[in-house]
Amino acid sequence: MSEAVQTLEGWYALHDFRAIDWSAWKRLSADERAKAEDELHALLHEWNIIEQHKKGSTAFYSVVGQKADFVFMHLRETLDELNDLENKFNKTSFAQYTIPVYSYVSVVELSSYMAKPGTDPMEDPEVVARLKPTLPKAKHICFYPMNKRRSGNDNWYMLSMEERRGFMRSHGMIGRSYAGRVKQIITGSVGFDDWEWGVTLFADDPLTFKKLVYEMRFDEASARFGEFGAFYVGNLLDADKTRELLRV
Amino acid sequence: MSEAVQTLEGWYALHDFRAIDWSAWKRLSADERAKAEDELHALLHEWNIIEQHKKGSTAFYSVVGQKADFVFMHLRETLDELNDLENKFNKTSFAQYTIPVYSYVSVVELSSYMAKPGTDPMEDPEVVARLKPTLPKAKHICFYPMNKRRSGNDNWYMLSMEERRGFMRSHGMIGRSYAGRVKQIITGSVGFDDWEWGVTLFADDPLTFKKLVYEMRFDEASARFGEFGAFYVGNLLDADKTRELLRV
Amino acid sequence: MSEAVQTLEGWYALHDFRAIDWSAWKRLSADERAKAEDELHALLHEWNIIEQHKKGSTAFYSVVGQKADFVFMHLRETLDELNDLENKFNKTSFAQYTIPVYSYVSVVELSSYMAKPGTDPMEDPEVVARLKPTLPKAKHICFYPMNKRRSGNDNWYMLSMEERRGFMRSHGMIGRSYAGRVKQIITGSVGFDDWEWGVTLFADDPLTFKKLVYEMRFDEASARFGEFGAFYVGNLLDADKTRELLRV
Amino acid sequence: MSEAVQTLEGWYALHDFRAIDWSAWKRLSADERAKAEDELHALLHEWNIIEQHKKGSTAFYSVVGQKADFVFMHLRETLDELNDLENKFNKTSFAQYTIPVYSYVSVVELSSYMAKPGTDPMEDPEVVARLKPTLPKAKHICFYPMNKRRSGNDNWYMLSMEERRGFMRSHGMIGRSYAGRVKQIITGSVGFDDWEWGVTLFADDPLTFKKLVYEMRFDEASARFGEFGAFYVGNLLDADKTRELLRV
Amino acid sequence: MSEAVQTLEGWYALHDFRAIDWSAWKRLSADERAKAEDELHALLHEWNIIEQHKKGSTAFYSVVGQKADFVFMHLRETLDELNDLENKFNKTSFAQYTIPVYSYVSVVELSSYMAKPGTDPMEDPEVVARLKPTLPKAKHICFYPMNKRRSGNDNWYMLSMEERRGFMRSHGMIGRSYAGRVKQIITGSVGFDDWEWGVTLFADDPLTFKKLVYEMRFDEASARFGEFGAFYVGNLLDADKTRELLRV
Repeated sequence: MSEAVQTLEGWYALHDFRAIDWSAWKRLSADERAKAEDELHALLHEWNIIEQHKKGSTAFYSVVGQKADFVFMHLRETLDELNDLENKFNKTSFAQYTIPVYSYVSVVELSSYMAKPGTDPMEDPEVVARLKPTLPKAKHICFYPMNKRRSGNDNWYMLSMEERRGFMRSHGMIGRSYAGRVKQIITGSVGFDDWEWGVTLFADDPLTFKKLVYEMRFDEASARFGEFGAFYVGNLLDADKTRELLRV
Repeated sequence: MSEAVQTLEGWYALHDFRAIDWSAWKRLSADERAKAEDELHALLHEWNIIEQHKKGSTAFYSVVGQKADFVFMHLRETLDELNDLENKFNKTSFAQYTIPVYSYVSVVELSSYMAKPGTDPMEDPEVVARLKPTLPKAKHICFYPMNKRRSGNDNWYMLSMEERRGFMRSHGMIGRSYAGRVKQIITGSVGFDDWEWGVTLFADDPLTFKKLVYEMRFDEASARFGEFGAFYVGNLLDADKTRELLRV
Repeated sequence: MSEAVQTLEGWYALHDFRAIDWSAWKRLSADERAKAEDELHALLHEWNIIEQHKKGSTAFYSVVGQKADFVFMHLRETLDELNDLENKFNKTSFAQYTIPVYSYVSVVELSSYMAKPGTDPMEDPEVVARLKPTLPKAKHICFYPMNKRRSGNDNWYMLSMEERRGFMRSHGMIGRSYAGRVKQIITGSVGFDDWEWGVTLFADDPLTFKKLVYEMRFDEASARFGEFGAFYVGNLLDADKTRELLRV
Repeated sequence: MSEAVQTLEGWYALHDFRAIDWSAWKRLSADERAKAEDELHALLHEWNIIEQHKKGSTAFYSVVGQKADFVFMHLRETLDELNDLENKFNKTSFAQYTIPVYSYVSVVELSSYMAKPGTDPMEDPEVVARLKPTLPKAKHICFYPMNKRRSGNDNWYMLSMEERRGFMRSHGMIGRSYAGRVKQIITGSVGFDDWEWGVTLFADDPLTFKKLVYEMRFDEASARFGEFGAFYVGNLLDADKTRELLRV
Repeated sequence: MSEAVQTLEGWYALHDFRAIDWSAWKRLSADERAKAEDELHALLHEWNIIEQHKKGSTAFYSVVGQKADFVFMHLRETLDELNDLENKFNKTSFAQYTIPVYSYVSVVELSSYMAKPGTDPMEDPEVVARLKPTLPKAKHICFYPMNKRRSGNDNWYMLSMEERRGFMRSHGMIGRSYAGRVKQIITGSVGFDDWEWGVTLFADDPLTFKKLVYEMRFDEASARFGEFGAFYVGNLLDADKTRELLRV
């Protein structure tokens, strides 16, 4: 039996990907559309207040290609709040013109492979800030879920703690070389959703996503042990962009 | 040929995951919605009576994310009762505003890897209580189906009874260290559904699901032999929460 | 090149799984529903006459869970008869309130691993009865498709006839220990459908399905070489149960 | 690097599988149905003329089970003709009562593993006839796509030409032993569709499909290297059978 | 840790595959259809202007078989432009009669396995022209996504740079032998979509696609390391062909 690494958890996360039912949206009268948009903006405003009070955070991005038209990434203190929030959205008029296409349930996670022995990480304000982050307003988002492989000789969970720490150190060094260009939020989803982790990246230049993920793929932690789900990439939806998206 | 472990079976289980058709639900008049909700509450009441008479048990939880809006987990003496129960639900007005998204058919199971030799487990009231359990009202539920792997050198069913017993002992020790924080119901589904087992966990703190499943993943029984399906996580739907969920 | 085992074939089989469109069914007037039910009963009667004349056989069972509401298992002399029969069903009013969800095309098969040399099995009335069976009216049905694995060292089709015969002998011994409790129909589907075989089990106690399939899984023929598709389990639909199922 | 075998290509192929929307078909008036059927028969007649002029060939079969109700297999000189033909069909009234369920794009192919050195196969009228065949009117059809495996030690494309030739020789000998009972058309789909080849078999006795494919599965070329997609089996639709299929 | 190869990136790419909803299209009046077609032609014209100004490029092809009716392949400077462009298309009347079936997000990429040391490739006009290409008007298109395998001994990302360079050199030599007959655009999609690369081929003779991809499959870079997704093949849609496609 291999020793499990300790993890620290912060806010729960719900990624909520949706397509717009354009035909239905266009069939509405201008008044009906305005009313539906108002309901969306009221929710966005409400979520913004929560973010200002440090009780959670919400990111809102378009998604490029047919996989979805937009994604909400919500962070909240509890699963109950996330559930209430999605139910509230589902009951809006706006939601009736959207089609749910993918979602992901997870919790912000830090693993202690690199923790300094003898310290309590929860007393470190930087750690707490990373567990309960305000999501950046970067121009682009990238999301993908992943597993560590358990296959024949490439079984992550049969490695010793020391071996895993070695792999993660090299992995982390690549990440750090992108500091300032990309912000990464790791969320754990063991017990919550179909993959073990979700990775959400934020950057102003979307090429950074490609460069970072590709460089990491040559790293043994990814090359031998990474299994990746679908990738989603999108653009920030601020108030203007949202209005533009929904104008028909 | 490897020796099969003996199993004990109790009540049959049906996990019934459903989404709500919010657009159709909102189109109803308040009277129609009230009537549909009354039908749901009549069924919940009926199931509650059965539970009080120890003839079965039903849990009712929301599901977080787009996979479903809620899940019924039903336990009954026979497959016929489960089938009658789902047909009865399908004929309600309420069911017409829901969309079936996933279900799982299984039977509560105890395996005798740890059984004391020379005793009849069915004479042990604790064993019987575990085979015909009243489902807890914990704040959160987690469900996932799983297989034991049969792949190359990682073939669970080619191991000797002694090897399997060793793996399960270590596995059980992790489970026991979570006693009091999580209640686990194992249901066997060989011959009934697409995976070999269903695992249903109940806890007041959903992080317990993550901690338990993640710690077990480093255990050889999971690391080398566990194959996992989709994970569903949700929140208890008591009378108030149910009303809140359905209010539009 | 490995030597192929000889097989004997009997009646063609069509498993036809369907869900009921409950909303559409409920929207019908009582008269329309009665008319649709009459068409179903006329077909069931017609199929019953064919069974009495030993020209085929049909089983009709509910399916537990969301995978389907019921299944017809039809045996007929020719693929043409099966095709005519499904087209005739599709044209009934009743069929309009059902949704096809899964089907399986195969032919009743006996493999001659255990055949006595020097005898013509088709002269054995018992063999012929097994190739053209009247399906039992057991209380429960279980269906699943399966393959023999062709993967690395676990490649069934690269084994010698002698090795395969040894595996099948042990496999058959488990089956025989369930004689009287479960009736098994093996249908071959190489060239007809997506798996190599369909297995249909009939029993009065559905736990028998679980016990049998689980015990076999520890047998090398299954442990190393069995690949299994979806499992369906259901309850006998006699005239009363059918009426009850369709009453709204 | 392994040496690629030379292939010869003839007519392009489109397999077009469709289900009938029975509810919509039944809702039509007898006149509307007659008009839709006339459009189908006009197309069938047009395709028949092309076949008579040796400019292509079309087979029309029912499909047994829920996968489809019928399949057109079209052979034409160019991809453009196939595309025009499917667009023309899609614009008929009849097509509006059908649902596309699967299609396959490929080209008739002969591989030169057995070619006599020093000869130009395109000067051999028998070769040309096999590359531009008139499809038989056998009572039954069987279609499946397949790949050659590239996995660990079972990597077809890493074998030498000599090894592949040996495997194909033995494979071909099984095929030849079925001469007169089954007609086989191999179509290559590398670069055109999701598998590397399509196999279409025609026979008067559908058991021949099962016997042939099962016997080949014990041949090393299939046992170690064959990967198979979905299998479709059906019955010839001549004018009478077509009328019968569509009569409601 | 293996050394990652450097890549150069040019324009972002969106492949947008769509089916036509023929029933809805036929239900329109001739005027409504004309209006919808005008909107499509206005967009095609707009995209043509962009191409003339070297600010991007768009290819428009039919797709053979049921996977799609047509595909747009768009190249633009930024992801934002691609997103705006798809939203603009989605809001046209024409889009309402189409069904999105598949899309792919990537960026034109050159890998520097063959780069001359000591030179800056972005100063080479030929390199820049390949990174920001005007898509050819060849008669046929072929698209497929692909990965480099990471499985047991066949793990591309665990090879040394030298080994990978060797494999790619041989791979490139096959490609070059098709120069003049096929134009190939490689787009990288790590971080953007579900596979690592998209391959788009253009040729006047579609057999070239088959010959090229098949020959490469025997090359070790593909035989051991290539994993391929779905293949799409189609025919150029010029103004006449577009009108013909949409005429009902």
